[in-house]
Amino acid sequence: MATNLLVGQSGGPTAVINASLAGVFESARAFGYEHVYGMQYGIEGLLEGRLVDLNDRLGDKMAIELLKRTPSSYLGSCRCKLPEFAVNEKPYKTLFDLFERHSIGAVLYIGGNDSMDTIAKLAAYGETKNSPIRFIGVPKTIDNDLMGTDHTPGYGSAAKYIATILKEVICDSSVYDLRSVTVAEIMGRHTGWLAAAASLSKGSDCAGPDIILLPERPFEEETFLKRVADLTAEHRSVIIAASEGVKNRDGVFLCDLVSTAGQLDAFGHKAILSGTSRYLADLIRVRLGCKTRAIEFSTLQRCASHLASRTDITEAYQVGGAAVEAAFNGQTGQMCGIVRLSDLPYRTATALTPVAQVANREKKVPDEWITPDGLHLTPEFERYARPLIQAELTPIYINGVPQHIHLDV
Amino acid sequence: MATNLLVGQSGGPTAVINASLAGVFESARAFGYEHVYGMQYGIEGLLEGRLVDLNDRLGDKMAIELLKRTPSSYLGSCRCKLPEFAVNEKPYKTLFDLFERHSIGAVLYIGGNDSMDTIAKLAAYGETKNSPIRFIGVPKTIDNDLMGTDHTPGYGSAAKYIATILKEVICDSSVYDLRSVTVAEIMGRHTGWLAAAASLSKGSDCAGPDIILLPERPFEEETFLKRVADLTAEHRSVIIAASEGVKNRDGVFLCDLVSTAGQLDAFGHKAILSGTSRYLADLIRVRLGCKTRAIEFSTLQRCASHLASRTDITEAYQVGGAAVEAAFNGQTGQMCGIVRLSDLPYRTATALTPVAQVANREKKVPDEWITPDGLHLTPEFERYARPLIQAELTPIYINGVPQHIHLDV
Repeated sequence: MATNLLVGQSGGPTAVINASLAGVFESARAFGYEHVYGMQYGIEGLLEGRLVDLNDRLGDKMAIELLKRTPSSYLGSCRCKLPEFAVNEKPYKTLFDLFERHSIGAVLYIGGNDSMDTIAKLAAYGETKNSPIRFIGVPKTIDNDLMGTDHTPGYGSAAKYIATILKEVICDSSVYDLRSVTVAEIMGRHTGWLAAAASLSKGSDCAGPDIILLPERPFEEETFLKRVADLTAEHRSVIIAASEGVKNRDGVFLCDLVSTAGQLDAFGHKAILSGTSRYLADLIRVRLGCKTRAIEFSTLQRCASHLASRTDITEAYQVGGAAVEAAFNGQTGQMCGIVRLSDLPYRTATALTPVAQVANREKKVPDEWITPDGLHLTPEFERYARPLIQAELTPIYINGVPQHIHLDV
Repeated sequence: MATNLLVGQSGGPTAVINASLAGVFESARAFGYEHVYGMQYGIEGLLEGRLVDLNDRLGDKMAIELLKRTPSSYLGSCRCKLPEFAVNEKPYKTLFDLFERHSIGAVLYIGGNDSMDTIAKLAAYGETKNSPIRFIGVPKTIDNDLMGTDHTPGYGSAAKYIATILKEVICDSSVYDLRSVTVAEIMGRHTGWLAAAASLSKGSDCAGPDIILLPERPFEEETFLKRVADLTAEHRSVIIAASEGVKNRDGVFLCDLVSTAGQLDAFGHKAILSGTSRYLADLIRVRLGCKTRAIEFSTLQRCASHLASRTDITEAYQVGGAAVEAAFNGQTGQMCGIVRLSDLPYRTATALTPVAQVANREKKVPDEWITPDGLHLTPEFERYARPLIQAELTPIYINGVPQHIHLDV
């Protein structure tokens, strides 16, 4: 009898992907699944038979509380896409044998659009075999680029982190009585959701960024420089938030304009210069002659659990739980996303969308939320994003640092 | 009659320099100083007569609470050293005229060793003029390199930030089933106190960094690569914390080994490649053939108030207050530092040291706290540093982000 549930995590980590795992685990136990198994390193590890019984690990409430506060993927992750089963059935046979051996009734996969592709393929394959196993996707990505959900769990925490540290960087930028331009580089190779979150630093005590550059609009050098020149004439410290994915009119990433210059590292090899902010800071320095500095917000954007949004943690937990409920009720090939009921008061519900409508697609920042000059956001963005960064979940500090939980410790 | 007190902030900001300002302000009012004036942009702004009455700004308790939670220098800062008065008396005349005009009885300067030089010179000049004005220094620097104090206010918060985010980066680094080396670059051009704080990420749930490189020891390339090779054979994810100030045997900064390669930026100008972590990551990649990544912890180390140490905030406030008391009691030319009474329980007191013994000197990490191979810290460091990162002061979140207070908003 198919009495157990299997869950995996895939793609880049977030601050709240483990909150979804907590939601899946607790709901699965509540719905009567006997064992909850975890895939180690996603579908890639599963193909090697790497599977762990989570009942032994997450049984007590303190483990769940730590899990909600631990960034990155507790189970480990992968970036692996299954082949079409018409082309290569072998991995499917391996997986379905394993599901049978472990009496798996439901498979949940927490991830982005590549992970939804995995769920779509497994569900489709299962259907051809009349398998009773249900396959449900749980959305997760800091990029907020998934269709079929108002927003993605993981985005709110990344947005809160970006808004908070940009606010602190703005404090830091005006400390000396000097004119300067600070360029903060924010994640998001294809969409500008994360860079747009920089605008949330604005408040009664902070003017926020002066310019926000998104990949949704081509970079217009002269318009940009003209605006920067005007801003430096107006005030001392100018702040620019730039998505790493900003491209010029020819569709070339600004960061590639740096690295294609044929630079070598100190050892004579091709240099790795991550560089949208560096490119823009150099451009401003050379063309306008101001003091500039480039700051990369780095990988912390996806792993700063100490500054996670409680709204995000709660919703991540909820979609995990609702995905279990959907599987229990016989649904398959669906992703359990978030529907917004109202902005004020902010209220949401969970809802299912066929994964085939989600996989391999990308949701961009709506054009009408970007100002006509392409250099900032309209108030619609704040109306959408501000509720997602509300409230906090205090870390459990031990010895002065937040405590986490790991599978291998 | 000299009934007012003047306070300034100088040098690089910290997360708690404003807590010292809060301590100065509240104590000055309690000791009966009528007005507390603030220098805008330190001694540099003061020379231009830029001075603000803080009674109008910090009078209510909510302002004080926000001040304790606002990073960077509320009053603005400068990097300005006074000339010897024997060489150029003019700025001294300007300043002492201004002190007299505003009935200043005490001048407090919150800063690092350059600021203590300013206090030393003002006190010495005052003495030659039989001035009744008292000059007291309040220590502040994330670098922890000041003599005359067990540790500097600002260091504990930077250390807590570094330990916390390294812990989160370590979670992030082990998400895929891949061998990799992560090099985190930490501030500290001349001393390794901040890089050493990376070791505080270690706990029951985290192994901490595998290697810590400090400027106190010359970088030995072969010893280092041998150790990294051994570590990559032992475990999947190797973590290195490197001070930006690491130098080779010839005294050349590793980051200068990158930028002296004659690189040009995308505009044909000399490239600015900040790069100790980049240098090390490239070295490991080229010599050992592993996947590496370089992360700079950036300016957030000095301005992450959202993650400040409550111990640090409390002590920063205390030295500010005790400095006022010292001035009130007739002391001058002194810095009010911290004396450690015991490690466990952690207890401290404040104490005065003549600024002349502090100015222009530098305290390094003791040689015996570094392991013989120069690649890690001994337990003595943790005994010293662990108490400094204890406890938190919750930010006041408004609209999802921490609220701050500014002079100009």
